[in-house]
Amino acid sequence: MPSVAVLGASGYAGALAAWLLHKHPRFELTALTSRSDVGRRLDDLYPRYRVPIVMEELDLDRHADGLDAAVVAYPHHAAASTVAGLRDRGVRVIDLSADFRLRALSTYEQWYGAHPAPALLADAVYGLPELGYRDRITNAQIVANPGCFPTAALLGLAPLARAGLLQDVVIDAKTGVSGSGRAATEETHFVTVDENVVAYKLGGHRHAPEIDQELAALGAERLEPVVFVPHLVPVDQGELISSYVKPSREVTQAELDELFATAYADEPFVELSERPPGMHDVENTNMCRISVHGDRHDGRVVVLSAIDNLWKGTSSQAVQNLNLMFGFPEDEGIAP
Amino acid sequence: MPSVAVLGASGYAGALAAWLLHKHPRFELTALTSRSDVGRRLDDLYPRYRVPIVMEELDLDRHADGLDAAVVAYPHHAAASTVAGLRDRGVRVIDLSADFRLRALSTYEQWYGAHPAPALLADAVYGLPELGYRDRITNAQIVANPGCFPTAALLGLAPLARAGLLQDVVIDAKTGVSGSGRAATEETHFVTVDENVVAYKLGGHRHAPEIDQELAALGAERLEPVVFVPHLVPVDQGELISSYVKPSREVTQAELDELFATAYADEPFVELSERPPGMHDVENTNMCRISVHGDRHDGRVVVLSAIDNLWKGTSSQAVQNLNLMFGFPEDEGIAP
Amino acid sequence: MPSVAVLGASGYAGALAAWLLHKHPRFELTALTSRSDVGRRLDDLYPRYRVPIVMEELDLDRHADGLDAAVVAYPHHAAASTVAGLRDRGVRVIDLSADFRLRALSTYEQWYGAHPAPALLADAVYGLPELGYRDRITNAQIVANPGCFPTAALLGLAPLARAGLLQDVVIDAKTGVSGSGRAATEETHFVTVDENVVAYKLGGHRHAPEIDQELAALGAERLEPVVFVPHLVPVDQGELISSYVKPSREVTQAELDELFATAYADEPFVELSERPPGMHDVENTNMCRISVHGDRHDGRVVVLSAIDNLWKGTSSQAVQNLNLMFGFPEDEGIAP
Amino acid sequence: MPSVAVLGASGYAGALAAWLLHKHPRFELTALTSRSDVGRRLDDLYPRYRVPIVMEELDLDRHADGLDAAVVAYPHHAAASTVAGLRDRGVRVIDLSADFRLRALSTYEQWYGAHPAPALLADAVYGLPELGYRDRITNAQIVANPGCFPTAALLGLAPLARAGLLQDVVIDAKTGVSGSGRAATEETHFVTVDENVVAYKLGGHRHAPEIDQELAALGAERLEPVVFVPHLVPVDQGELISSYVKPSREVTQAELDELFATAYADEPFVELSERPPGMHDVENTNMCRISVHGDRHDGRVVVLSAIDNLWKGTSSQAVQNLNLMFGFPEDEGIAP
Repeated sequence: MPSVAVLGASGYAGALAAWLLHKHPRFELTALTSRSDVGRRLDDLYPRYRVPIVMEELDLDRHADGLDAAVVAYPHHAAASTVAGLRDRGVRVIDLSADFRLRALSTYEQWYGAHPAPALLADAVYGLPELGYRDRITNAQIVANPGCFPTAALLGLAPLARAGLLQDVVIDAKTGVSGSGRAATEETHFVTVDENVVAYKLGGHRHAPEIDQELAALGAERLEPVVFVPHLVPVDQGELISSYVKPSREVTQAELDELFATAYADEPFVELSERPPGMHDVENTNMCRISVHGDRHDGRVVVLSAIDNLWKGTSSQAVQNLNLMFGFPEDEGIAP
Repeated sequence: MPSVAVLGASGYAGALAAWLLHKHPRFELTALTSRSDVGRRLDDLYPRYRVPIVMEELDLDRHADGLDAAVVAYPHHAAASTVAGLRDRGVRVIDLSADFRLRALSTYEQWYGAHPAPALLADAVYGLPELGYRDRITNAQIVANPGCFPTAALLGLAPLARAGLLQDVVIDAKTGVSGSGRAATEETHFVTVDENVVAYKLGGHRHAPEIDQELAALGAERLEPVVFVPHLVPVDQGELISSYVKPSREVTQAELDELFATAYADEPFVELSERPPGMHDVENTNMCRISVHGDRHDGRVVVLSAIDNLWKGTSSQAVQNLNLMFGFPEDEGIAP
Repeated sequence: MPSVAVLGASGYAGALAAWLLHKHPRFELTALTSRSDVGRRLDDLYPRYRVPIVMEELDLDRHADGLDAAVVAYPHHAAASTVAGLRDRGVRVIDLSADFRLRALSTYEQWYGAHPAPALLADAVYGLPELGYRDRITNAQIVANPGCFPTAALLGLAPLARAGLLQDVVIDAKTGVSGSGRAATEETHFVTVDENVVAYKLGGHRHAPEIDQELAALGAERLEPVVFVPHLVPVDQGELISSYVKPSREVTQAELDELFATAYADEPFVELSERPPGMHDVENTNMCRISVHGDRHDGRVVVLSAIDNLWKGTSSQAVQNLNLMFGFPEDEGIAP
Repeated sequence: MPSVAVLGASGYAGALAAWLLHKHPRFELTALTSRSDVGRRLDDLYPRYRVPIVMEELDLDRHADGLDAAVVAYPHHAAASTVAGLRDRGVRVIDLSADFRLRALSTYEQWYGAHPAPALLADAVYGLPELGYRDRITNAQIVANPGCFPTAALLGLAPLARAGLLQDVVIDAKTGVSGSGRAATEETHFVTVDENVVAYKLGGHRHAPEIDQELAALGAERLEPVVFVPHLVPVDQGELISSYVKPSREVTQAELDELFATAYADEPFVELSERPPGMHDVENTNMCRISVHGDRHDGRVVVLSAIDNLWKGTSSQAVQNLNLMFGFPEDEGIAP
């Protein structure tokens, strides 16, 4: 069995990845590392993740020795150098940070500052199998796991992008609080979030260029930057993306249905729905549930796409990618 | 003191109106009627509304006798004939339903079917004082209290509409569950709503033409129909409207700030905020809190407007209108 | 593979049982029946339960033909006659209702009225394996699946009952709303439940005699009736039982720890915790998580026990019992 | 108008007190102080509290100059020396901390450590008017505002204590998260609290001796220490106390009803209910809503009492006490 380690296991994303890999029938979870909770067992920190493994301080040489793969659940910027260290030691990596998602260095630098390991950018594959990256993920040494917002937004928009139908795109995102991570702040305090909905990052969210990049790769090269505004809702796990598309030509509901049905006929983790999907429908799964609505009196196409931000948005998508990298059935350990 | 009755006091909107009027220092709440809860005290049905008045079956002749005003909290269609009966008896009316909001009969008929009292349409004044209706409300016999979505959306968009800046408008609304009313359904069941966000009425919401009508009245006559999609969020009371505007010309943040500051300088119930407003900021108040965001890399102007759907969205706005109709200070009994 | 049907699959308990059995590697889910949703697929009613089976109207002869086992998810009283019909046709039954939980007919009649099938009472085994019923469940023709409150309360109190330590017991229960079932009522309306906690059934809850019966069976024959009051909390799935025990003799924390550790050393679905367990720790699992607190200045022993009311409290416990009945590993399909 | 300052206005309790006093028609709110948010306006920190006053660093000499009263919203221990400083300067004080609640210095020291100003203990009056302290509060120089748990528990138990009916008391408390204060911690993180209920302070909560002290003062001198366990529920503001009383003699429901009706006939802020009270019934009010349940088959009397932990449990109770101290109507500014 391939051995896997999770670096940064004490955050929400790392902990869930650890749990999924611990239960996975084809991987051996060999080590967990953490900066904040060294010496603590993961199931003590998160009783719901029954992983009786003690978190250690990272020792690259020791942890990489004989390791087949690692999930790196570090903050942006902090991830890149560790990813580089793992690569040097022959370990295949799923990076949950944004460090290897943007293919253009200049775009990365514009949103995140200097890149700690620009030489590795060319090696990284964008880890959204449903967007046409499946084959390249299979052979990838570094998989840049997508952001949670791009995952849901792109799965909702991809069939329209490929068909050349995107003319103007407004994306209104609603996300549960786990997307903000484990840090206890005024923004994540229960009293702040409860009975509240609030937009944030009005000045621009780093996930917008990631969406732009992938829409362009799907054929929407001349599309102007998408409008993207995220909102925090009083939900733990869950994400709903409402995309408002002005289509480049008139398109009927029947045509839309056909387009989406064809696009996702063979995708195990995308399901289409006539009714608008809810966050609850996909909670604790690797599924993306999508509905598309045309024939509107305002001429727009509205696409609704729901995922669990911690699962398909992050950690179970990492497992999906690991399955692909090691030749296992794509849904092994994460079937809904 | 003017006497007021609330017809349909057992629903969420009627009950809150009753409570606000019961506490109001300048109105005498003389009667409550209900169809479903005749004989029950309002504070038995809603302990949080401490109104020790028994709900009666409506007897128009008896209840209208000597009555100065009535708040009619009936469903659409059911309201119009009762409003007509009250008018015949000389009672001034605040109608919480949609029956008198749309000035064009044909638009009403398109969305709601035949109108039960079309002759009265011309008498009704749209009850959003901040939109320029204040003087006409003062003298109105029938005030058509706005829908909750139009209230927040229009207050957010009005300064842009008046300035001729609206070119293309997408409105993404998030509303608490009390907006769906007291009926116990699968949609309002706690288990359905909890940990969930879901869009609804994708085929078209009746509040969209109401928004279109008022934006046109503000000067945006040639604007195409707004795109409007509401979402249900796990919140009791609260509403957040995210409006995405493609401006008809370039406009700076400074210009936007000036525009909004000027528009609402004298409005007691509109407050501007630099930070995005949250539902919680306006809960249990008649306030609308607005932030406007320009200078974005995508060229859009984003307006966020938050209200309490049951208060400014419905019942406290009714009291605001009653205050105007009877010459009282506009914030009497509903100061934040 | 043994064939199983779920009767009453459109309610929360039946639907979850159906989903667990649909995913189960060793049972074949052959039919779902419903009274309210005939002709509808389960995954249309509950998208989160991906079971593409159409619900049918029950036809006992047809559905029982060749069937090995059935989960009956009917209301109290309605269940008994169907259970009898299944037994007549040789089908082994897990009954989720209360109809076969109380061994004394007179107690049943006192709380539920006349029993529809009293002759079968003697055949039924109480389906709480951890209470010493494991062997009898293995051979049972009818398993009376325990109530959710008794499950958590009894697992928390059993070690004390067996040790003769129970002198006086107060049980304060907090439950999520799914325990109230799918019926849309004023009590389950989001607006009623949200931001609220309220006690109910102050006149006596039917689960109290079930707890009394089992505590007596464990050796606490002379114990007075337990004090039991349930509270509804704004949570979907989850149950926390706080039991306040006046011990019959002084007992130290060390002794309590030893008692509980011994009692549950070999139980796969009971986990002990030093810290108070939370509902969230056991959500979507068949686990019961327990902490016991002695050495208090008030002399009481406080036991906290948490389960998911729909899982260990109902449907996954049904699967646990089915595993036992058919000789499968006890945690097959429901390992945490 | 008497002048009042709020010291420690940036915490939840202080901020609410500031808002209530800002709106109060008979007090002039002259200053707000804070340690963490000096220079920030209160309505910037808490938009829902529309108090346009900048928080300053405390300067005792300057702030006490000409000041009639102060509300001190400091943590335990930190409060006492400031209270002493205010007293030295002739300012009457409502202390929201626990520093002057326990009359026996030894009890204080056992639970809180050394007392910073023991000499003032004798001057302090316990600020629960309904318990017989009304007259003494009127003339008090220091009012020790009760804890939120004791407020609700004592109001529920007082009639039984006075009647000599308390023999054995178990108190199970459920509280909203605002009771834990503004500090952002793992315990107050939305993801921790949401969909969860968890007991805490199993080793003993400091509010227990406060309850014991007051029950003894009401006549229950020989009562053993109450059993008290608090639970955190996913609610912002609200508190429900479930008290399980073994009465010292048999008592009927009719007798209980009479006892409570008599006890609270003239109390403006206590309301009796036949149905179990919910947190939502008293949210944002100074009310305590109580139901008492006898004639149970288990012989216990169950008392349920609900308050808003930030209002009657803390800040509006402070205003109630200030009203008494300055001879204003007791419900001025805080009528429900």
